[in-house]
Amino acid sequence: MKKIEHIGIAVKNLEDSNNLFAKLFGKLHYKIETVASEGVNTSFFQVGENKIELLEATSNESTIAKFIAKKGEGVHHIAFAVDDILSEIERLKKEGFTVLDESPKNGADNKLVTFLHPKSSNGVLIELCQEIKE
Amino acid sequence: MKKIEHIGIAVKNLEDSNNLFAKLFGKLHYKIETVASEGVNTSFFQVGENKIELLEATSNESTIAKFIAKKGEGVHHIAFAVDDILSEIERLKKEGFTVLDESPKNGADNKLVTFLHPKSSNGVLIELCQEIKE
Repeated sequence: MKKIEHIGIAVKNLEDSNNLFAKLFGKLHYKIETVASEGVNTSFFQVGENKIELLEATSNESTIAKFIAKKGEGVHHIAFAVDDILSEIERLKKEGFTVLDESPKNGADNKLVTFLHPKSSNGVLIELCQEIKE
Repeated sequence: MKKIEHIGIAVKNLEDSNNLFAKLFGKLHYKIETVASEGVNTSFFQVGENKIELLEATSNESTIAKFIAKKGEGVHHIAFAVDDILSEIERLKKEGFTVLDESPKNGADNKLVTFLHPKSSNGVLIELCQEIKE
């Protein structure tokens, strides 16, 4: 766990929320990316060494659509940067955390990612992400 | 908005959660502080340039007890560091955000703080905090 890489926020409408967060931060998002496999459109703002990732569902089957239907818009996950995602998965399993994808997936922003189930981590959905080196 | 100062996480039992997050981060919290005016016991972990603040209610009247009763444990707020909290309050009011305390209060960790109502900020409770200089 090197640092918080980003905080993911579930939003209903990406364009509206891009405008809202631009007012909050006093600057525009620097990137928009669609992750088809996850059914999300994302945008990113840089704040200090962290990013804020806004997540909009592209279909009703998306986990983001289901999250908003259940809990409303708001913080969806916290992502921590790790150097070696496979060794962190092993370490955290031994510590009692429930790892959702033991084989990491390709996520937004050129990352290998997995998640810890919020039931094992105080109600917080935690993402681990490792940058994919070329 | 210089950077994310901390992420506040509502927990039922601070001791249990200190142990859980120590396993997650591979290190112990560095501080415990009670904020009597807010009815909370807090602990802090350092992760990169950010802090994770765990918040435990000291009574059923605490906003943290009410939050957990309604939503369960999980992310409670995101705090952003600002240089001049009064000018940020004025700026954000003009941008349409609902500021909860127009006169900042004393918060944990030697800070002047206020909050933006989550209804005006995409379901996210946002704290602004300015360090109190001696």
